[in-house]
Amino acid sequence: MGPIIGEIENKDLDATGFSSSNPQLEKLPSVYKVGFPPRKNLGREFVDTLRETFFSDDPLRHYKDQSSSRRLLLGLQSVFPIFKWGRSYNLTKFKGDLIAGITIASLCIPQDIGYSKLANLDPQYGLYSSFVPPLIYAFMGSSRDIAIGPVAVVSLLLGSLLQDEVDPSKKEEYLRLAFTATFFAGITQAALGFFRLGFLVDFLSHASIVGFMGGTAITIALQQLKGFFGIEKFTKKSDLVSVMKSVFDSAFHGWNWQTTLIGSFFLAFLLLAKHIGNKKKSLFWVPAIAPLISVVLSTLLVYVTHADKHGVKIVKNLKKGLNPISFGKIYFTGANSATGFKIGAVAGVIALVEAAAIGRTFAAMKDYQLDGNREMVALGTMNVIGSMSSCYIATGSFSRSAVNYMSGCHTPVSNLVMSAVVFLTLLLITPLFKYTPNAILSSIIISAVVGLIDYKAAYLIWKVDKLDFIACMGAFFGVVFVSVEIGLLIAVSLSFAKILLQVTRPRTAILGNIPGTTVYRNIEQYPEATRVPGALIVRVDSAIYFSNSNYVRERILRLLTDEEERLQAKDLPKIEFLIVEMSPVTDIDTSGIHALQDLYKGLQKRDVQLALANPGTIVMDKFYSSKFTEMIGNNKIFLTVGEAVMTCTPKSKEDA
Amino acid sequence: MGPIIGEIENKDLDATGFSSSNPQLEKLPSVYKVGFPPRKNLGREFVDTLRETFFSDDPLRHYKDQSSSRRLLLGLQSVFPIFKWGRSYNLTKFKGDLIAGITIASLCIPQDIGYSKLANLDPQYGLYSSFVPPLIYAFMGSSRDIAIGPVAVVSLLLGSLLQDEVDPSKKEEYLRLAFTATFFAGITQAALGFFRLGFLVDFLSHASIVGFMGGTAITIALQQLKGFFGIEKFTKKSDLVSVMKSVFDSAFHGWNWQTTLIGSFFLAFLLLAKHIGNKKKSLFWVPAIAPLISVVLSTLLVYVTHADKHGVKIVKNLKKGLNPISFGKIYFTGANSATGFKIGAVAGVIALVEAAAIGRTFAAMKDYQLDGNREMVALGTMNVIGSMSSCYIATGSFSRSAVNYMSGCHTPVSNLVMSAVVFLTLLLITPLFKYTPNAILSSIIISAVVGLIDYKAAYLIWKVDKLDFIACMGAFFGVVFVSVEIGLLIAVSLSFAKILLQVTRPRTAILGNIPGTTVYRNIEQYPEATRVPGALIVRVDSAIYFSNSNYVRERILRLLTDEEERLQAKDLPKIEFLIVEMSPVTDIDTSGIHALQDLYKGLQKRDVQLALANPGTIVMDKFYSSKFTEMIGNNKIFLTVGEAVMTCTPKSKEDA
Repeated sequence: MGPIIGEIENKDLDATGFSSSNPQLEKLPSVYKVGFPPRKNLGREFVDTLRETFFSDDPLRHYKDQSSSRRLLLGLQSVFPIFKWGRSYNLTKFKGDLIAGITIASLCIPQDIGYSKLANLDPQYGLYSSFVPPLIYAFMGSSRDIAIGPVAVVSLLLGSLLQDEVDPSKKEEYLRLAFTATFFAGITQAALGFFRLGFLVDFLSHASIVGFMGGTAITIALQQLKGFFGIEKFTKKSDLVSVMKSVFDSAFHGWNWQTTLIGSFFLAFLLLAKHIGNKKKSLFWVPAIAPLISVVLSTLLVYVTHADKHGVKIVKNLKKGLNPISFGKIYFTGANSATGFKIGAVAGVIALVEAAAIGRTFAAMKDYQLDGNREMVALGTMNVIGSMSSCYIATGSFSRSAVNYMSGCHTPVSNLVMSAVVFLTLLLITPLFKYTPNAILSSIIISAVVGLIDYKAAYLIWKVDKLDFIACMGAFFGVVFVSVEIGLLIAVSLSFAKILLQVTRPRTAILGNIPGTTVYRNIEQYPEATRVPGALIVRVDSAIYFSNSNYVRERILRLLTDEEERLQAKDLPKIEFLIVEMSPVTDIDTSGIHALQDLYKGLQKRDVQLALANPGTIVMDKFYSSKFTEMIGNNKIFLTVGEAVMTCTPKSKEDA
Repeated sequence: MGPIIGEIENKDLDATGFSSSNPQLEKLPSVYKVGFPPRKNLGREFVDTLRETFFSDDPLRHYKDQSSSRRLLLGLQSVFPIFKWGRSYNLTKFKGDLIAGITIASLCIPQDIGYSKLANLDPQYGLYSSFVPPLIYAFMGSSRDIAIGPVAVVSLLLGSLLQDEVDPSKKEEYLRLAFTATFFAGITQAALGFFRLGFLVDFLSHASIVGFMGGTAITIALQQLKGFFGIEKFTKKSDLVSVMKSVFDSAFHGWNWQTTLIGSFFLAFLLLAKHIGNKKKSLFWVPAIAPLISVVLSTLLVYVTHADKHGVKIVKNLKKGLNPISFGKIYFTGANSATGFKIGAVAGVIALVEAAAIGRTFAAMKDYQLDGNREMVALGTMNVIGSMSSCYIATGSFSRSAVNYMSGCHTPVSNLVMSAVVFLTLLLITPLFKYTPNAILSSIIISAVVGLIDYKAAYLIWKVDKLDFIACMGAFFGVVFVSVEIGLLIAVSLSFAKILLQVTRPRTAILGNIPGTTVYRNIEQYPEATRVPGALIVRVDSAIYFSNSNYVRERILRLLTDEEERLQAKDLPKIEFLIVEMSPVTDIDTSGIHALQDLYKGLQKRDVQLALANPGTIVMDKFYSSKFTEMIGNNKIFLTVGEAVMTCTPKSKEDA
């Protein structure tokens, strides 16, 4: 390659360095013509855009050139990935999955009982939701590491949305609405995936998710103070101020010291276990089984000491037996159905956001591809079926998925194992949890949600992008000081505001020549870059659309005015050429072309010539269709800024 | 300049063409370091972003380094531009303004009477709205060509939004809501301008405005068939199907032949006048005064022939006298106030869109700057004051502004002249319009709105951008076949959908070397460009944000997979380097950096090295803060693709 590059370099000199030996630039023979792609036909362009939007991953590529029986198999595999990975399943993999499954089951059982309280539901519904959904997911899901079940954030969100509609003390009605919401959450998830709208999940920015999750974690932890201190009278609100008021109002006369003692002891134990797990990765199982150990020990303690007679609140009611059918409880029509849909859609999307984040993280760590849309169909189906078997919304859990990964899971079989363990628990040992003190559940939840407060990510966001940090903090404070719903609303609004900002105010830069090269770069980034006398080179850093076309035109004119004032003040020659570097302008619409036409007319009045450098495929195509190329002249469009400068700068005058 | 460029070219060869004489590239002394801007402090960055968003035009730049009395004058001039242009006003300018003002007055009087019917208001309210608002605008507005008054589209929109709430036959109540809506339209407009949110108007795309305007024009024309044929029983709906049904149902027995005859004759006359004006620009005054001539002739005709006794409907009630005060009729509180706000905000924004489009068009034609936000404050104030003096929403009219421009107006004084003529009309001659047949008003409206159907723009949109064309047609058919509100909703939704599409699915391109240069360009645009063996060069054509970061990562990996499959099939050497051209990547957020980190990890697993070319100021800054530069290695970031290729391609192996 070496010599070839050398040759190219020499040719380059011939083409663009020609000027040094021949000052008559207008006769320059070989200014490279800006490329013109073969024009697409009318429908083609439209189909291409649609395909790139909805089928960017080209999901049908494997079906090409296959026999019909093979296509059937591929289709089956795509809906039920178990038929794909199942064919190469073996004992070694099962050993890994078995250990991982048992580990996450031991973690999920106490968590489930606690999380169902966040959703204002009886404890068994948490366990139900760790039985059926993981079972379905194992057949339809394609993530190898995700652990399915109820999660803290979605439980709290569902609970607070539901209690705005129905008083949780009206048990039957509340439950019906919960199942309806779960049903529609599943429908929403499956529909988003089926119609390949999974990308909509990306409209919630990373920063606002970090803030929302952190705020929700703190809210959840605050809610646990009730169980932790054994407070009887506790606010229904979730904001920091109301909760702290409840806690301090009941201090000394409302706290139960036995409860607080048990809670504090086991919270310390759980946090220590967490610390050990973080310190030494090989001891990851310590925090994973610590909750179950806490439950067993504290339950025994209460049973032996009869602490429940001394005001230590216990779980008490935990129904034995498998999930009852709940199909008949779902509202399919009427006002309740609409309410359920509204709640389900919101909670379902948040559940998707969490599952998508987990799925992607682990897929990147093990380097396998995950089809986001197919995952959504799997999660949706699992929730639809769940809603008919007394489950509430389940999704991928951060903490359990991490344990699953570290325990060495290979396939979704670990979810099957977990599901089986929960099945046995429901059938056989649920009555044993009767004496489990609520304080332990609170401690388990607190120690679980602490991990959701990602202060490192928040610090990184602060360092990298101040606007993102505002979005993060907005969502965080919205959740902590107002409510989960308001926090979510802030997160969504700020995410959209950022998108709109991006398309309304594209950046522009003045370019200068980097000494010793033909390269032109932003003079702010490269202070050594020199301006070209008599020409202003401006780069527009975005596609020019209706949302920014006026801004772009006005910005360029203002840059020109500023530059002219600067030159005038220094008594330097005035600007005769405006060169617009179009490389980053990836697309343009009719408004954008109008703006450029207006710019051209404005420049003509000022006696400044317009030249364009390196417009892309699509932009050239549209310039041509709209006859803008004719307007400014084809010879005013160049391959590079360098060529434009050579042809445009008024050097011949200086030479003369 | 010639020799200097030559020198630069030679240096360029020294720097980048060094390889030809020295194959040990890693010792290359002068690979140009990618620039690092001076870091901004924490608040600075945030303030800069805010300023560019809301004060991109730097409105206070003239106040710098001025005495306080001068600042006061400048401030006064900025709120009341009349103090600026008034100081250089002279008789020549007044002559132009006088002629223009009289011409637009003659055009506005018949139009106003007709348009007020579109808003379901009595005819005098149209005239009122051509008296007060232009008066206010003349003092506060900065456009020299805009002609203020009621316009067809806003009148129809206001009328249909109002009649959804109150039956127009309940005159007093309807009127009160109309004034309330006008008041809040003004408040909305002024607030948008005051808080410098004028750019929000740009979120309605040009294409959807063209469609919406065209559809509304057709709807308005269809509505006129009632007056044109003198039909008694006419639908309240505005869609094509309902209207045509009304027209044909009443054909033969419901049509009034005298009305139809008069209407057809004068419509033909008006269209002929329009045709003449279009053919010869110097005869622009023919279509401008034709409406008034039609009114005078037809009124005389009816008066003489007593045609009103033969079923020809006439205006009949047209109250004499000036605008009554309507301050007390506005609902400032309560449910009606909220309804008025909703209607006013929508109609006010559409009025702004129309005024902004007109203002910009003429400012570009005469090459003067228009401060969009200040214009909005002027329009808003004028509507607020209008609402208190029995006016409904006024804005800039396309047809009258064009006549104003062509009649040689110089300043907003032409609006003052028009206002004065309307004032005299209201005081003295309104009773004369009593015998004006409604059919003439219908003909005038039809001939006026025909100009809003911009089929040329629609054809251009079709040629330039198919997606834009869908937005245009969506809004058009929405208005024509359903209702104005639905059409508007479609226009707004499609505009937003396009913005979201833009930020979700950025384009990517594979680059190749253009023979004979060190330039790398899209191989689709330049089919002669050659791929570099062993390296894949990808350009990402957008800022990388949360909304597209996952797509970008997946797209790059897919391009790599495709390329690897292609190379494998041809038995060519596999890819060892992935070079990402970052020039168009103008910004990146934390999600984007995460995506690149994931990409880097994924590439490591595949044994492919990642190199970046020309990241911009902000991107470099964020790479550095997030330690991404350390991750991939500082020596993997290059100034140009050419340098990246030279350093990265596995040429040393080939050389060996």
